Amino acid sequence: MSEAFCVTVEVSLREGIADPEGLTIERALPALGFNGVSDVRVGKRLCFRVHAVGEAEAHRQVEAMCERFLANPVIEEVGISLRPAT
Amino acid sequence: MSEAFCVTVEVSLREGIADPEGLTIERALPALGFNGVSDVRVGKRLCFRVHAVGEAEAHRQVEAMCERFLANPVIEEVGISLRPAT
Repeated sequence: MSEAFCVTVEVSLREGIADPEGLTIERALPALGFNGVSDVRVGKRLCFRVHAVGEAEAHRQVEAMCERFLANPVIEEVGISLRPAT
Repeated sequence: MSEAFCVTVEVSLREGIADPEGLTIERALPALGFNGVSDVRVGKRLCFRVHAVGEAEAHRQVEAMCERFLANPVIEEVGISLRPAT
């Protein structure tokens, strides 16, 4: 029987890959009075609900979605967390 | 004395605010063979390092940054987590 799962996918740039958005934020902050901020990295966070037969199958589906569609595996890495929907 | 903290800020759209990016993902998935995905919401995740005198002061600084610069409090909500940098 199919169950629902709440999924969170965190997509971030791999170490060493330039992050122009993060750099722009870092450079803008001192002008606004915020000093002492460094190493800014910007990523994406997706939350959704998926229906699958069991947690393992749900995880497999989400991994495939990340690889094909939600992230660029060449420059990005993903973290998947998953819990049964209440 | 100033200490370093690793900060993660999760910015997501408030409930009820339309999420066109999430909707686009949701509509595209079935064509790629992924069914049973719903309620897609896309947010931002920022990681950075901040220097401050104590955790409370670091948290206060990050909250102010979120309110003024990193998020739009009218349509977005933020989650802040913070730990001493190793």
